Amino acid sequence: MPRIRLYIDHPLAEGQTVPLAPEQAHYLFAVMRLGEGESLRLFDGQTGEWEAEVLQTGRRGSLRVRAQTQPMAWPPDLWLLFAPIKKARTDFIVEKATEMGCRRILPVRTDFTNSERVRADRLRLHAVEAAEQCGGVFVPEVAEMSPLATLLAEWEEGRLLWFCDETLAEQASVPPARTGQPGAVLIGPEGGFSEAERTRLRALPFARAIRLGPRILRADTAAVAALTLWQMIEGDWR
Amino acid sequence: MPRIRLYIDHPLAEGQTVPLAPEQAHYLFAVMRLGEGESLRLFDGQTGEWEAEVLQTGRRGSLRVRAQTQPMAWPPDLWLLFAPIKKARTDFIVEKATEMGCRRILPVRTDFTNSERVRADRLRLHAVEAAEQCGGVFVPEVAEMSPLATLLAEWEEGRLLWFCDETLAEQASVPPARTGQPGAVLIGPEGGFSEAERTRLRALPFARAIRLGPRILRADTAAVAALTLWQMIEGDWR
Repeated sequence: MPRIRLYIDHPLAEGQTVPLAPEQAHYLFAVMRLGEGESLRLFDGQTGEWEAEVLQTGRRGSLRVRAQTQPMAWPPDLWLLFAPIKKARTDFIVEKATEMGCRRILPVRTDFTNSERVRADRLRLHAVEAAEQCGGVFVPEVAEMSPLATLLAEWEEGRLLWFCDETLAEQASVPPARTGQPGAVLIGPEGGFSEAERTRLRALPFARAIRLGPRILRADTAAVAALTLWQMIEGDWR
Repeated sequence: MPRIRLYIDHPLAEGQTVPLAPEQAHYLFAVMRLGEGESLRLFDGQTGEWEAEVLQTGRRGSLRVRAQTQPMAWPPDLWLLFAPIKKARTDFIVEKATEMGCRRILPVRTDFTNSERVRADRLRLHAVEAAEQCGGVFVPEVAEMSPLATLLAEWEEGRLLWFCDETLAEQASVPPARTGQPGAVLIGPEGGFSEAERTRLRALPFARAIRLGPRILRADTAAVAALTLWQMIEGDWR
């Protein structure tokens, strides 16, 4: 199996000729030094994975799709909401959420969020790169940053929100039981949630407080840990 | 509660005067600008956490221990064995293992390990820093790098080793049942385990293959995910 995997931003089909964007051509022919007739794998986020061969190299290079190598596999219906932190760790969270099989990644502004702005287009490139590397056939959507209050006010019916609450008493530390409902995990910023946010979250009928052990986890660690629990209880790790 | 936490490499007790190493004095007085009489928190990895005050600033500065603020809390008896990868991700794994409550961190050389050398002293500094930041009172031991075969040959009786095996069939994807035994989690390198290693691991009576979902996880993601499952099933997250 060819090791190089490339995300293509439109639907693929057998026999199709795929023109390349300049940065894709640069990556394949200048960086990876692929030659004519050599193969790679493509995915479009909608039709699974395909083997393709290089039709023409160079800046106006193109590929031809040969045959499907993986059927489409949608990740479970799981969202990650997180308060952006320092740039490198925000990038890591997007990478991890992609590997862990989230459908949507939603940066949220909370009372204690330090980071004012997040470039969703830059984060989307990280999600694409993570999907290329982790062998997935799906790229999660990265939403524009929204205030947490807005997201909660417009919450989709039937989706359960797990929020990580360090202040929970130990007796509440059980992971929630399986419900089979779509889910979302909310990770707060470094300073945690404000008292007002915590009160609001606890009162929401669709929210469940969960506790991730007795130590304080950084946001990126907490994201992977909470997504692990969700995937094991509700998702595709069972 | 003072926000600054500092690890001190010898046992602490009430009323004790604590001399500072030059780099500690630099951090407290030049970087954090603590003044005489101001407080911070100390821990030594053995006696819990203590509040202390600045007795004298400057290069030969010292602190006085006031009173205990947290009793000692040992993490569960869990080790992390991992094949070092690129420097930044190796550092992340050590940070995460500390937050996740490992007792020992053991870098291992496997058949497909790329990284030839690991400086255990540098990794230990990362563990100290992570413990300072996550509010823990324990710093895991970081062992020198060993060949995986040596560690397995000298394995401690009664300790169960979970190894993450991407090649496991789906029906094996259940997390193992609770045993109450000490544990260890083994994360392979980017290229996975060799066929010989996998055969060897599967034949060991103390080893259990576990599967972390249908997507390929990077080593640092896999470490957090596997440690989450262990802490929830065997450790102090229950």
